[in-house]
Amino acid sequence: MPAKSYVDLPQYNGDFRSMPAYMDAGDWDAAGIKWVNVHPDNPADHDLPTVMGTMVYSDPETAFPLALMDGTELTMKRTGAAAAVATDHLAVADATSFGVVGAGVQAYTQLEAISKIRDIEEVVVSDVSDDAVQQYVDHFSDRFDVRGGSISEAGHCDILSTVTPVEDPIVTAEDVGDHTHINAMGADAEGKHELADDILLAGTLVIDDHAQTTHSGEINVPYHEDTLADDDIDAEIGEIVVGNADGRTDSDGVTVFDSTGLAIQDVAAAHVVYEHASEHDNGYEFDLLGV
Amino acid sequence: MPAKSYVDLPQYNGDFRSMPAYMDAGDWDAAGIKWVNVHPDNPADHDLPTVMGTMVYSDPETAFPLALMDGTELTMKRTGAAAAVATDHLAVADATSFGVVGAGVQAYTQLEAISKIRDIEEVVVSDVSDDAVQQYVDHFSDRFDVRGGSISEAGHCDILSTVTPVEDPIVTAEDVGDHTHINAMGADAEGKHELADDILLAGTLVIDDHAQTTHSGEINVPYHEDTLADDDIDAEIGEIVVGNADGRTDSDGVTVFDSTGLAIQDVAAAHVVYEHASEHDNGYEFDLLGV
Repeated sequence: MPAKSYVDLPQYNGDFRSMPAYMDAGDWDAAGIKWVNVHPDNPADHDLPTVMGTMVYSDPETAFPLALMDGTELTMKRTGAAAAVATDHLAVADATSFGVVGAGVQAYTQLEAISKIRDIEEVVVSDVSDDAVQQYVDHFSDRFDVRGGSISEAGHCDILSTVTPVEDPIVTAEDVGDHTHINAMGADAEGKHELADDILLAGTLVIDDHAQTTHSGEINVPYHEDTLADDDIDAEIGEIVVGNADGRTDSDGVTVFDSTGLAIQDVAAAHVVYEHASEHDNGYEFDLLGV
Repeated sequence: MPAKSYVDLPQYNGDFRSMPAYMDAGDWDAAGIKWVNVHPDNPADHDLPTVMGTMVYSDPETAFPLALMDGTELTMKRTGAAAAVATDHLAVADATSFGVVGAGVQAYTQLEAISKIRDIEEVVVSDVSDDAVQQYVDHFSDRFDVRGGSISEAGHCDILSTVTPVEDPIVTAEDVGDHTHINAMGADAEGKHELADDILLAGTLVIDDHAQTTHSGEINVPYHEDTLADDDIDAEIGEIVVGNADGRTDSDGVTVFDSTGLAIQDVAAAHVVYEHASEHDNGYEFDLLGV
């Protein structure tokens, strides 16, 4: 998996990201590329989503393109799943409360996925838009005890996910509980971060990919200001998943998962979608290459 | 345009290449990505082409995916066009003969494109496969004086294109004429080259992209062996096209265009295909993103 590469389009206040990968899961392997963008002016100016993705899913043995699929929905689901995997290894075992800062589209799959691995009862959602908060509350009110609240109320839950587009930190050290696990999902470009430096420095810090996170993840700003260094990074999530590093231990307080999103997550998710669609005769066939 | 990135699959004797780009042509701009592979065992083992490509063509303003298209045919045509542009600037003005070493799919678009910018009358095609030579001769015999021949006969034409998958050089300095312009198209991976070093060192050497050619273009082997250095590179083709460097001058003998293939060529070609298809109501609409 090469690090994702960016095509910046300052004239349109946006960018494209190219995310190619191959993965070998043992009993299956898969390859593909996601071509995805971030254009924050899309909703207001063009009635289009900020993020749109196209996924090409290929047979690694021959490179034949097996499927072209919407990468937008795929991104939301795999991002929720990535947070849930990290949460499973890093949150307290008896976690029952979930806070989310930012009530946009990504906030929904965070709760959907995390509630699969912890018995979530109480949910606090925080957003500058009251409408967005209300929409989130309405969506989940039949399944959870869910309410709007401050950043600090969200941050004092057992698990917190931050899914905002902010440039400068909005969550301070006082905003989070003693043993809160934080999924820092929002930062996705140079110069962006959501959490105050002292949270990252005092907590247990787990990343997904060193090249990506130092370029454009939660830690990219303090890393380039030399406030935070490689010594402050405790593990990569992959090391924890395969058992080469510890998840939460008794000595851990606040834990942070700095998620940038990996192309192998997209390929793995596309594999599931493709297998499911093939099994259920979903999607439709067309001749792209004439071979 | 980031340099193309590779996903190597040694277990399948193949690789994927990811080629994203944005280009601004003044009165239009365009963006997209080509996901393309090289799997040399495909024809024998799977009855599939060695190279298959998928192109996602996007509106740069919103990133909306405007079209998904076959990138295989696109690659052949833009590769022919790239050679023709270089030939126009570097071949002698009164060139009438064209030689080609390698009679595979790429060899066809070389002649198609180059014959648009020079009055080609005589064609010599050289290949280890007599069948491939005969097929090429048959294909073009009503339009050109075309025959099979040795590498040296092909190389003594005014223009030579090399489009083979060889690893080690097959064209020696003695194989080419005093003023032959060579389009070195075949080398596309580390360790591969088609031309003897002394051709590159003695001739006028023009590249398409420094990062790509030193990584995987015709010069990558002598460059990494320190036989050839940056001083030996006379120009980038883009500099010549915009008038910042000279094309062929009276003092030039053999000229070489080292072509690796640029993502902006794919995006430009996709733009032409998309505009043409839109105008002629070609292709078909489908809802990929549900927006």
